[in-house]
Amino acid sequence: MSDKFKDPTAPLVVIIGGGFAGLELAKKLSHKRFRVYLLDKHNYHTFQPLLYQVATGGLGSDAIAYPLRKVIGPMPNIVFRMAQVERIDKAKKEVITDVGHFPYDYLVIATGSNTNFFGNQRLEQLSMPLKSIPEALDIRSYILQEFEKALVEQSVTEKQRNLKFVIVGGGPTGVELAGAMAEIKRNVISSDYRELDKELMNIHLIEAGPRLLAAMTPKSSEAALGFLRNMGVDVRLNTAVKSYDGVELELENGEKMKTDTVIWSAGVKGNYLDGLDEATRVRGNRIQVDEYNKVKGEESIFAIGDVASMSTEQFPNGHPMVAPVAMQQAQLLGDNFVRLQKGQGLKSFRYTDKGSMATIGRNKAVVDLPWFRFKGWFAWYVWMFVHLIMLVGFRNRLMVFVNWAWNYFSYERAIRLIIRPFKRKEEVDS
Amino acid sequence: MSDKFKDPTAPLVVIIGGGFAGLELAKKLSHKRFRVYLLDKHNYHTFQPLLYQVATGGLGSDAIAYPLRKVIGPMPNIVFRMAQVERIDKAKKEVITDVGHFPYDYLVIATGSNTNFFGNQRLEQLSMPLKSIPEALDIRSYILQEFEKALVEQSVTEKQRNLKFVIVGGGPTGVELAGAMAEIKRNVISSDYRELDKELMNIHLIEAGPRLLAAMTPKSSEAALGFLRNMGVDVRLNTAVKSYDGVELELENGEKMKTDTVIWSAGVKGNYLDGLDEATRVRGNRIQVDEYNKVKGEESIFAIGDVASMSTEQFPNGHPMVAPVAMQQAQLLGDNFVRLQKGQGLKSFRYTDKGSMATIGRNKAVVDLPWFRFKGWFAWYVWMFVHLIMLVGFRNRLMVFVNWAWNYFSYERAIRLIIRPFKRKEEVDS
Repeated sequence: MSDKFKDPTAPLVVIIGGGFAGLELAKKLSHKRFRVYLLDKHNYHTFQPLLYQVATGGLGSDAIAYPLRKVIGPMPNIVFRMAQVERIDKAKKEVITDVGHFPYDYLVIATGSNTNFFGNQRLEQLSMPLKSIPEALDIRSYILQEFEKALVEQSVTEKQRNLKFVIVGGGPTGVELAGAMAEIKRNVISSDYRELDKELMNIHLIEAGPRLLAAMTPKSSEAALGFLRNMGVDVRLNTAVKSYDGVELELENGEKMKTDTVIWSAGVKGNYLDGLDEATRVRGNRIQVDEYNKVKGEESIFAIGDVASMSTEQFPNGHPMVAPVAMQQAQLLGDNFVRLQKGQGLKSFRYTDKGSMATIGRNKAVVDLPWFRFKGWFAWYVWMFVHLIMLVGFRNRLMVFVNWAWNYFSYERAIRLIIRPFKRKEEVDS
Repeated sequence: MSDKFKDPTAPLVVIIGGGFAGLELAKKLSHKRFRVYLLDKHNYHTFQPLLYQVATGGLGSDAIAYPLRKVIGPMPNIVFRMAQVERIDKAKKEVITDVGHFPYDYLVIATGSNTNFFGNQRLEQLSMPLKSIPEALDIRSYILQEFEKALVEQSVTEKQRNLKFVIVGGGPTGVELAGAMAEIKRNVISSDYRELDKELMNIHLIEAGPRLLAAMTPKSSEAALGFLRNMGVDVRLNTAVKSYDGVELELENGEKMKTDTVIWSAGVKGNYLDGLDEATRVRGNRIQVDEYNKVKGEESIFAIGDVASMSTEQFPNGHPMVAPVAMQQAQLLGDNFVRLQKGQGLKSFRYTDKGSMATIGRNKAVVDLPWFRFKGWFAWYVWMFVHLIMLVGFRNRLMVFVNWAWNYFSYERAIRLIIRPFKRKEEVDS
């Protein structure tokens, strides 16, 4: 396929995955002497930090999805293929996909992560994950369907089950989702479902560890907990989930909750690829890499972002699976590819933690900077500003900005649409 | 269920359908002495005139779908139910739905219309209709999937089949869709799919009658034809479709076209309801009504909009199935209900044709006013202005406006997203 590139002698780089890591690397290699194939199973980049806003009707999917072809359109040495990768053939140095084989000189695995149900198949079948746009749209439909169900249900007990929303996992996704749901309870129910007593709606956030937002400072965790509890969310710490049968959620402490809706944001695992040596698979289904993001035991295969596990003194089990790590690894790897081409030595990766943040609701956010932390309305503005900047493409920034401005002044989540009704797998199968 | 209304003695009106007719009637009855149930299978109103822009990536679905609960939120005497109507029980004066029975004093059927395949099951299975938002999103996915397929296809013949888009039916939907596809060919292919020769893409518009836009003036039909042919669309008049097997479309004249994509906009039929006297079912699966929109032979059942067929001197087979007729019938019926309540005589319906219009592409539209017609860029601005005004809700107007402005300056259709890949029924079944 190399004839499509202008310089047929340039090294072939195949990047698997157009997330934060893969897309950043493509940008770095743009206009350099490389022929690059960017592969992704979707034709768009997903801005994952705002998925929860799609799930709760604050943003439409086209505000946070960006066509990958549009990004790489102006990059003459990069070709995009919408492809589902089946495996890597290390012997032939090829990536096998559903649309053909892609030979490589260098392979970069940037396949990211997916929801981890820790082997619990019933939970996987019956709870709702939130790692992709279709999943976010499914949650939006499902929540609204539950409101509709509760409305025509006669029994108060059943209504409560319809309106009990349990979010498992107190990381940023769980916290942000719980906050958004609390705002729906406060602002949407009384106008949209005036026959419903909104006090029948209950939001629970269940976290196995001792605090929310474990990656942030204890002060910020405490602040997030306070915000959520003030907003009426029932937050349970040190509480693990045991099982869910579609009707009843059982906790490890024996307590049972009757609910139709369990949203699972309690863990992620790397999207490991077939064809690698099993010895490279480490904790969290990630791929072990050295300080140059080179896969253990390989010379021409690299992994970056969530799927890569680089053991350092500070992070013995690999860096946090967040966008800034992915982007910094991609930037360094891009530079290292150029150094390699010039016969220069590679630079090793060092993560610059610029801080982290989470939003809980209107005027409620927490921000940890390296030397400084703050919360409240200013943190909320900073959170919005940083996310607007991080979005890919001016159109998406504009769409998110217009929608946020609308939501701010109207106090609503305007996209209360059930475009494709969601049925749980069990209901579809039966 | 009447205890939810403030005035339990007010007459019960059940409106089936939240389209242009049903929604307009609900607005008319708002704050009047009626208890109204508005039923729809979706929880949103669809602005059908812009469906083709969703199908071609110019607008997101949330720009043209408007939550019905939001419209009726401020109307104290109106209750919305998301319900699938099963049938009418005339004896009990009840509407039977999947969420319960709704008793009525007056029933208004505003169920609209759906795609008419005229009994051709293979066409129904294999071609794509465009009457709902999920259908529009399916077309968007499918077109983009065909581009992706063509890109990795080796054979030029196969590429041509992937890139041959056949639109059947030269009414407004077919014309507007063909124009939008021609603009995609002109503006999107070279940047997004630079490895594809865009001349391999062909757009065909097939119309059984002697001219496009048969409801407009012959001059406007002529202008639309000229615009489309200048844009490279192959328009065939007086050409009927015989069959389609998923690979090859056969025309009545014996000609065959190899294509993956047949978009069917060649006819609509009324959404007739079970439980009515069969004698009321007339041409086009519509319900025969008198000059007050009262269903033939009934005292308390009315039908308005596309599904209603009122025979007049000018329209012996019923009025055109367009939004202005639906809205005018709804307005009159709303007034007539109030007259009925006051013991006054009913007024009969008289359609005021304010004109019609269609857009073909950038700066290309045709407008027929009762005494006057024009075309070109001014017609295009008028078309946009009228559609912005007609949209329900300020947020949707804002979203459409921002997206149109974006598309105008960028020459692109920004929402080139395959969120849910589409598989034809045949592929799903096998």
